[in-house]
Amino acid sequence: MVSVDLPSGLFGEDNSGNNPDSVIRADHTLTIQFPKISFFFADNQDFVGKIHTMPIGLHPAKISSTPTDYNIIDYTLVSGILKDRKKFDHKGHFGHGLMIAGSCGKSGASVLASHAALRTGIGLLTAHVPRPAASIMHTAVPEAMVQCDQSDIMVTEINEPDRFDALGIGPGIGTKPNTKKGLRDLLIKYKGPVVIDADAINIISMEDDKADIIPENAVLTPHPGEFRRLSGSDATAFARLDIQREFSKKYKCVIVLKGAHTSISLPDGRVWFNTTGNPGMATAGSGDVLTGIILGMLAQGYKPSEAAIASVFIHGLAADLAVRSTAYESLIASDIIHNIGASFIKIRQFKNK
Amino acid sequence: MVSVDLPSGLFGEDNSGNNPDSVIRADHTLTIQFPKISFFFADNQDFVGKIHTMPIGLHPAKISSTPTDYNIIDYTLVSGILKDRKKFDHKGHFGHGLMIAGSCGKSGASVLASHAALRTGIGLLTAHVPRPAASIMHTAVPEAMVQCDQSDIMVTEINEPDRFDALGIGPGIGTKPNTKKGLRDLLIKYKGPVVIDADAINIISMEDDKADIIPENAVLTPHPGEFRRLSGSDATAFARLDIQREFSKKYKCVIVLKGAHTSISLPDGRVWFNTTGNPGMATAGSGDVLTGIILGMLAQGYKPSEAAIASVFIHGLAADLAVRSTAYESLIASDIIHNIGASFIKIRQFKNK
Amino acid sequence: MVSVDLPSGLFGEDNSGNNPDSVIRADHTLTIQFPKISFFFADNQDFVGKIHTMPIGLHPAKISSTPTDYNIIDYTLVSGILKDRKKFDHKGHFGHGLMIAGSCGKSGASVLASHAALRTGIGLLTAHVPRPAASIMHTAVPEAMVQCDQSDIMVTEINEPDRFDALGIGPGIGTKPNTKKGLRDLLIKYKGPVVIDADAINIISMEDDKADIIPENAVLTPHPGEFRRLSGSDATAFARLDIQREFSKKYKCVIVLKGAHTSISLPDGRVWFNTTGNPGMATAGSGDVLTGIILGMLAQGYKPSEAAIASVFIHGLAADLAVRSTAYESLIASDIIHNIGASFIKIRQFKNK
Amino acid sequence: MVSVDLPSGLFGEDNSGNNPDSVIRADHTLTIQFPKISFFFADNQDFVGKIHTMPIGLHPAKISSTPTDYNIIDYTLVSGILKDRKKFDHKGHFGHGLMIAGSCGKSGASVLASHAALRTGIGLLTAHVPRPAASIMHTAVPEAMVQCDQSDIMVTEINEPDRFDALGIGPGIGTKPNTKKGLRDLLIKYKGPVVIDADAINIISMEDDKADIIPENAVLTPHPGEFRRLSGSDATAFARLDIQREFSKKYKCVIVLKGAHTSISLPDGRVWFNTTGNPGMATAGSGDVLTGIILGMLAQGYKPSEAAIASVFIHGLAADLAVRSTAYESLIASDIIHNIGASFIKIRQFKNK
Repeated sequence: MVSVDLPSGLFGEDNSGNNPDSVIRADHTLTIQFPKISFFFADNQDFVGKIHTMPIGLHPAKISSTPTDYNIIDYTLVSGILKDRKKFDHKGHFGHGLMIAGSCGKSGASVLASHAALRTGIGLLTAHVPRPAASIMHTAVPEAMVQCDQSDIMVTEINEPDRFDALGIGPGIGTKPNTKKGLRDLLIKYKGPVVIDADAINIISMEDDKADIIPENAVLTPHPGEFRRLSGSDATAFARLDIQREFSKKYKCVIVLKGAHTSISLPDGRVWFNTTGNPGMATAGSGDVLTGIILGMLAQGYKPSEAAIASVFIHGLAADLAVRSTAYESLIASDIIHNIGASFIKIRQFKNK
Repeated sequence: MVSVDLPSGLFGEDNSGNNPDSVIRADHTLTIQFPKISFFFADNQDFVGKIHTMPIGLHPAKISSTPTDYNIIDYTLVSGILKDRKKFDHKGHFGHGLMIAGSCGKSGASVLASHAALRTGIGLLTAHVPRPAASIMHTAVPEAMVQCDQSDIMVTEINEPDRFDALGIGPGIGTKPNTKKGLRDLLIKYKGPVVIDADAINIISMEDDKADIIPENAVLTPHPGEFRRLSGSDATAFARLDIQREFSKKYKCVIVLKGAHTSISLPDGRVWFNTTGNPGMATAGSGDVLTGIILGMLAQGYKPSEAAIASVFIHGLAADLAVRSTAYESLIASDIIHNIGASFIKIRQFKNK
Repeated sequence: MVSVDLPSGLFGEDNSGNNPDSVIRADHTLTIQFPKISFFFADNQDFVGKIHTMPIGLHPAKISSTPTDYNIIDYTLVSGILKDRKKFDHKGHFGHGLMIAGSCGKSGASVLASHAALRTGIGLLTAHVPRPAASIMHTAVPEAMVQCDQSDIMVTEINEPDRFDALGIGPGIGTKPNTKKGLRDLLIKYKGPVVIDADAINIISMEDDKADIIPENAVLTPHPGEFRRLSGSDATAFARLDIQREFSKKYKCVIVLKGAHTSISLPDGRVWFNTTGNPGMATAGSGDVLTGIILGMLAQGYKPSEAAIASVFIHGLAADLAVRSTAYESLIASDIIHNIGASFIKIRQFKNK
Repeated sequence: MVSVDLPSGLFGEDNSGNNPDSVIRADHTLTIQFPKISFFFADNQDFVGKIHTMPIGLHPAKISSTPTDYNIIDYTLVSGILKDRKKFDHKGHFGHGLMIAGSCGKSGASVLASHAALRTGIGLLTAHVPRPAASIMHTAVPEAMVQCDQSDIMVTEINEPDRFDALGIGPGIGTKPNTKKGLRDLLIKYKGPVVIDADAINIISMEDDKADIIPENAVLTPHPGEFRRLSGSDATAFARLDIQREFSKKYKCVIVLKGAHTSISLPDGRVWFNTTGNPGMATAGSGDVLTGIILGMLAQGYKPSEAAIASVFIHGLAADLAVRSTAYESLIASDIIHNIGASFIKIRQFKNK
């Protein structure tokens, strides 16, 4: 079953009022010039099948002068974002990031996120962890420095966050009261670049006035369940995309809503859909790795929007390169980390073509 | 010395009454259309030599319509069991498994079994371990989460097992009284998918009324010594196969009796013989890896019979792929884990042919 | 924009009085016979662009008989320094080194520096570390032995340093009073070969009379910030080079001033510029690895000047080999260690040509 | 300078009375049919240069019927020793070994020796270690089980050694009084196969009556310094070889005297010289790896003489294979372990030619 442009019965944007039984279930969709927004929603997965984009010769000047809030992340975009390193650049140029991660039983999150930040080009990386995680970190990631929390079981207090060029907060920290308090204090006073993930998002979700606690220009990386709690809405598909955009505008932050086609919304209302990645990434720790990559980019001085866009692409591309030699089932988060380097190379090769 | 169909003097099934001195010791056996059941028993290893199957053109329809309880696990079967991942599948689709493993001096079992589950496609994996094993786990397998037992030296109590989609129980847990008690409590109340191995089998063996403690549809993975204790019979070869089948029927469970040709018996009395694997697998931790693979399959929603059959084949195939670059002597359990991905790829390649 | 010999307006040595606006910014500089000293300074990076050396047929005898204090480290030089191993050489021939490194939160420095020393050919390596770092070391670098400090959080006292053939001091040790005292005591009495890095340099910088505490023929490996503290001068470029030379002469030590073109000054006033390395080395732990390599060379009996020159070249070359399969951003210190072997091979291949 | 058969002035056996100044220093020696014994001594390294053996057509039957106590270990010999694994062999066939190794600051020895035993084909491996080494072992070698000593800092007591099929004793255990006592008790009562290394040899050296404490058929693996203490003689070269042979005869044990050409003496007075290995093996932990390999062979049921001969060859061959991709300087003990598998493959390839 092959559909042209759109499967009959499917709309290009909002399908919330649609009767699924009246939509064709295509095996392939040959779509004209651009994929439609509705293709990027999980709800429509069974209708569109495999997507093939057919250029029909629209004039590039016309395309680029047509305003749209909806964009695609591809090699052209990301290779344009990446800066080249100069010969005399030193560690100081690439920033010192702090990764706040882990709690009793979840210290692996700190290992994965810190390792990913180092593989993304950060100059120096300190991990803020509960005390017993220090030896885990030194053994598994000797390149990282460690700053121990006063607590043995969770993160409770971060002193002098301004010593760091960027912060990553959230993987595996849990939502216990002391962590909540420590995080609240931190987010209210910290003004630098920050990526906020996982339980840190859940903690923000519990706040009445989120504007107080979401730092301006923060990058938040919820999965759909976390975004539901954060936004207070359980909409899906097109409606959720609008809610995501409104959230970014209202709280002046970047929202990275993770999924098969991760959508990134900026404070100005624009949205980017990612085109890399595969189902093997549905594995424990995959999100921790993304948080580490974004911290790595922020510490190097990339703008939050650039950091989010490039990181999501690199993260998916690294997983795509990893499954060249393993199966979706066997992909683990460490494999993504080990392919970040190959990912950078591939993007730079595109640039130099 | 070449035998045709069967070495003279050897029966195709039960050879318990046979005089070994009256059986030909073949270097090769060219067997007609199908290997005979007796070929799969260690006792007959010296008689059959290397086995070659010669098709003689029996009609496929006839073959498939001939009822038999005895089957072979091959690429066709396993590639039919494996499900494909969809683009929008997320971590939740692949389940959250709990691996209950390890005790003082045997924490490596937890490392191996947990790593294997992650390499098999589980969405999330929590390891239930004695407290000091937490940092071992986080260092060696950062993708795993850890749930600490109240005890420093063994597993004694598992709370809320129903939070998990599947359980793996047994590698390295020992048989101390507190472990026995904790395990008994767990097995009596837990109703979900579960794979039971090693000392957990030994603990069940000590029970008078096994029906109380073996969960319906559980997968048990004894080696011959463990099966002897479990079944209370020291029969070998054909007699043991019947005992295995009866055990499966009586306790409504899947028995994976490990050996050169692992036999899997189902509650309906059918039996499968595995055709992958090699003598290099006679190495410490090899069984822990199998338990992890089965947990990985169960958590992803495979039926216990499917999980057992596919896992045993994948486990042996991974070892076969590993010995392409190492010797039987040098194969260690970690090598099997590292080849699970290649194993999935090879099975899928068969499917796509 | 291509410049010949020198970009117009740029001097070959001191450019401190130059107006940057009056210097050509070349994309390429085709320089005659030898690069000019000013090319090796970060300040001139934007003027010279990519450097190409054009031989114009100067007579080799004339070149080698022309006295100069400024030299380049290349394959010819380093392959001449490296000794070949004889068949019957044993562990004792290659020395027993002590690496004094790490403190609470910085134990990874000890892992990296010790591993690097072992990969450089040291016979035996003992790491002196705060007590909790012992298990980190044994897990990550099982080839190293460990000598625990009396303190759990820092290095405070080194007994019997003369048992060792060479010492490495400094990575990650911090500058707390007890460490300062222990280090002072050690440096005053120890007379053997030693490489001094990082916080050990900072501790020396705080001393009024540095002549007491800098052992004769010690190798010090400051980065520019550390050298500023050590020398008490914040000069850059040509002026700093002179200060470096004077420091080496005054304190009879080898200064390895790290940068894109690391400069090595000897007690006799001569200077070497390194020609290997890349911007990927601006990463956490890169300096710890260099310290380990130098310790490895000193323990094997290389003279401090030879050890410094060969180590800096090997360190940069290992990083150059590493970025063949990874990106600058993704290079981490462990990658440099893993390429030390390939680095030795490449240098020996040059020698055997 | 090329010598034929022998460098002029060098004797084929004993050169103790020789004036070194009267011996030719050859770059190459083309020796007739067989290398001479004196070629295997470090003292003569500078005379013989590179050795080339020239067959002159001696009749094989004559060669093999000529009695000699001096033999060479080569592919033919070792491939004849190695047993093939049968399809139905299980873990029990390959033995359960106990590796007694490590002490405070030297736990890495236990990691290396245990890993090597597992890579050599042992069925099960338990490491007896001081308590804090347990988590090191489980993290670095998850396939090993651990039996903790009652002491936190050393090995003091081994209960029920007869539960194991073979013992390895010595790497990194130190010579403290409690270790000495525990070891003495063990060696006096234990009657099974055992390999004794390092500090365990030093402890035996301190005993007045060594016959009490050296188990019959034990394999001892001293380096020259340890052998000096063990034998009480500081002879070198030919004289030491005689002392080694006498020691083996007197104490009915196998002595593996480690060196560039390791010599193995048996209780019957015969000697084997090894022909694999390279100067890169002069590195920390190399001896621990050999001890692990020998334990692996003993546990699988090889005779002590076979285990010693095959292990020494495999150990050297693994190092030879490792330096195909690294330099002598960069070879570390872990590299040898990682090439044990390739070593077995290479020996078996010879056998199948």
